[in-house]
Amino acid sequence: MSLIVQKYGGSSVADAESIKRVARQIAATKKAGHDVVVTVSAMGDSTDDLIDLAHQVSDSPDSREMDMLLTTGERVAMSLLAMAIKDLGVDARSFTGSQAGMMTDGQHGRARIVDVTPTRVRQALDDDAVAIVAGFQGFNTDSKDITTLGRGGSDTTAVALAAVLGAEVCEIYTDVDGVFSADPRVVKKARKLDWASYEEMLELASSGAKVIYIRAVEFARRHSVTLHVRSSFTDKEGTWISAKRKAGTMEEPIIAGVAGDISEAKITVVGVPDIPGKAAEIFTRVAGAGANIDMIVQNISAQKTGLTDISFTLPTSDGPAVLAVLEAAQPEAGFDSLIFDDQIGKLSVVGAGMRTNAGVSAQLFTALSDAGINIEMISTSEIRISVVMRADVLPEAIRVVHAAFGLDASEDATVHAGTGR
Amino acid sequence: MSLIVQKYGGSSVADAESIKRVARQIAATKKAGHDVVVTVSAMGDSTDDLIDLAHQVSDSPDSREMDMLLTTGERVAMSLLAMAIKDLGVDARSFTGSQAGMMTDGQHGRARIVDVTPTRVRQALDDDAVAIVAGFQGFNTDSKDITTLGRGGSDTTAVALAAVLGAEVCEIYTDVDGVFSADPRVVKKARKLDWASYEEMLELASSGAKVIYIRAVEFARRHSVTLHVRSSFTDKEGTWISAKRKAGTMEEPIIAGVAGDISEAKITVVGVPDIPGKAAEIFTRVAGAGANIDMIVQNISAQKTGLTDISFTLPTSDGPAVLAVLEAAQPEAGFDSLIFDDQIGKLSVVGAGMRTNAGVSAQLFTALSDAGINIEMISTSEIRISVVMRADVLPEAIRVVHAAFGLDASEDATVHAGTGR
Repeated sequence: MSLIVQKYGGSSVADAESIKRVARQIAATKKAGHDVVVTVSAMGDSTDDLIDLAHQVSDSPDSREMDMLLTTGERVAMSLLAMAIKDLGVDARSFTGSQAGMMTDGQHGRARIVDVTPTRVRQALDDDAVAIVAGFQGFNTDSKDITTLGRGGSDTTAVALAAVLGAEVCEIYTDVDGVFSADPRVVKKARKLDWASYEEMLELASSGAKVIYIRAVEFARRHSVTLHVRSSFTDKEGTWISAKRKAGTMEEPIIAGVAGDISEAKITVVGVPDIPGKAAEIFTRVAGAGANIDMIVQNISAQKTGLTDISFTLPTSDGPAVLAVLEAAQPEAGFDSLIFDDQIGKLSVVGAGMRTNAGVSAQLFTALSDAGINIEMISTSEIRISVVMRADVLPEAIRVVHAAFGLDASEDATVHAGTGR
Repeated sequence: MSLIVQKYGGSSVADAESIKRVARQIAATKKAGHDVVVTVSAMGDSTDDLIDLAHQVSDSPDSREMDMLLTTGERVAMSLLAMAIKDLGVDARSFTGSQAGMMTDGQHGRARIVDVTPTRVRQALDDDAVAIVAGFQGFNTDSKDITTLGRGGSDTTAVALAAVLGAEVCEIYTDVDGVFSADPRVVKKARKLDWASYEEMLELASSGAKVIYIRAVEFARRHSVTLHVRSSFTDKEGTWISAKRKAGTMEEPIIAGVAGDISEAKITVVGVPDIPGKAAEIFTRVAGAGANIDMIVQNISAQKTGLTDISFTLPTSDGPAVLAVLEAAQPEAGFDSLIFDDQIGKLSVVGAGMRTNAGVSAQLFTALSDAGINIEMISTSEIRISVVMRADVLPEAIRVVHAAFGLDASEDATVHAGTGR
């Protein structure tokens, strides 16, 4: 009997009717002869409501108490789901993160999973029950305090359980049909991917595709967990994510998808002395501010002024902290000025086939140039090319590039409302 | 340094502003030099909202999952309260029932406390922090499942902690000024009691006074925990409840208070064969239906018909189940018919002084008779006399009796809105 782990996001369990629908789906999977472990997020916007409440009672909510507060959301959803499943004649038991043995370190709000000891989950499966585990939460083995895993935590919970329990597949249910070659709200003829490699999914997720969190994909890659990202609103197959495409399927396309991201800003450090160690000095300070840097570009000092400009992108929300750190360092670091630009958009084309195909960059730059779109920064990985442009031209750029790489489907994609966590 | 346990009901923490107000009160108690342990209920009507949700997803919600669901309410309230207290510069830590060592049996929805091992609570106090414990919840030591203590559970949590930790006093904060000689919404000149004995409070609570739950009073009596029922909206002293009135205070009044209760119904079993064992047979069946019987009256068979009538009162909500059981038993038990009457009201006068004063019954019956109010049933304990009448005359009866026993205060009582749990 094979084991399937299913993860349902907040939009899939937003109200009583949705919970009953999901319960029917889980019961059907169980009755089809599978062992089933379910991970569930908090209902709809309930986590945001709890965060609002916290900010109403406190200017800077304590992180331990915030975790205590937020973990109630998943507990509400999972107990309701268990009730609904039992009503369908299938046994079900819900477990908190600590009951499910989700052991973490002590970083409240962004705890890392240290180990998973799902003794009670295994017992439930042995007793022929569906085990429902609260997503997003664990407990600190030292302090016994409740912790949360941070953004995308429920995806990570599901993948971790799938890894430890040796599941056949970890199904990530969401409100879209799978992973698309571009955001269907931007590109009407976006194509649902039948399959993507872990590497492609990692690049797509880190380039703005929101359907599954990068951390969960990384976890799945490391533990060889097969993922299946699919809609909780249809029976259609979604997108499979694994190390190798199943045999007998068509040849890999060069480009899997085009992703857009407007959540980043650009900081330019103007007039940096062009001597060894200056870049290191600057980025040591940036790292000290806790910011995640994405792209870095240093212009050569063409005019032999002895000065150079360094630009880098980072999440817009990290901007103020980094600017403060750099301004404080100006006298010592000896640069001229800082420019902050939060009106940038990043376009990325991702595809494992890129490795063996020259000319992808040329094709990309030509398509953008033909559309009159100016490129400000470029960075590449083995299977990704990213370019930064003005934010307002990003949607048009995505459509142009999607068409240029022959990704347009023959039919428009269907788009469902809402977003998952 | 003395330890004070404070319990805040749902109406005291109904919204962010109320939580901040309660936080200030707790911080002030701490800064005045006391160790403080707080028990808190769920915010406002949030428990009812969760119960509604459960009934939306399931016709008969599983009791284990219901406990998992409902315990989130107290966790939300306590984590928000801890945040708000920390903002005031006082350290605070919230603990779930299981983190606080609240060990119970496995009766979901109405678990009994088996033992309390508040190791983490003691550690928090040693670290000079306020410990906030979720009311109403514990965990089953056998199954490790989360349990709830049932109605009045938060009162019981507070008293249990006060008993185990040896608190100087257990303060029960509510939305009224204390325990009154009658419901101030019925009797404008109701008098706040400065003190009541455990026995008086037990009789008042079981006779319809809702300010504190009988189970918590019983727990306090057994473990000699001094209770102080008071308002969270004023600084005024409320009602002290203990074994003995403090020395130097005035002589005990004969009657402490008059309580009214319209939550019960009356079942009359008509035409029961007047032979030994018939009453036992009937009440064995009633007990089998899980009903809590309050008063029982059997009329003697005056007309020597060989038949008698047996009437008893019980919570109206238990009525249908008991009627069904009795109807099924009719052929074997051999009675004529059943009468169900849910329009009864019960008036009780309670006072420890009654023990040593003859004439209280006579005074009560005379007052009611003078007001033209008919008495249908009578029952007595050592310190209580209860009479059943039509429900619609109960408020008038309470006013008449309150005045007849000289309980009317010189001023009207102030009444706050809302009710606690």
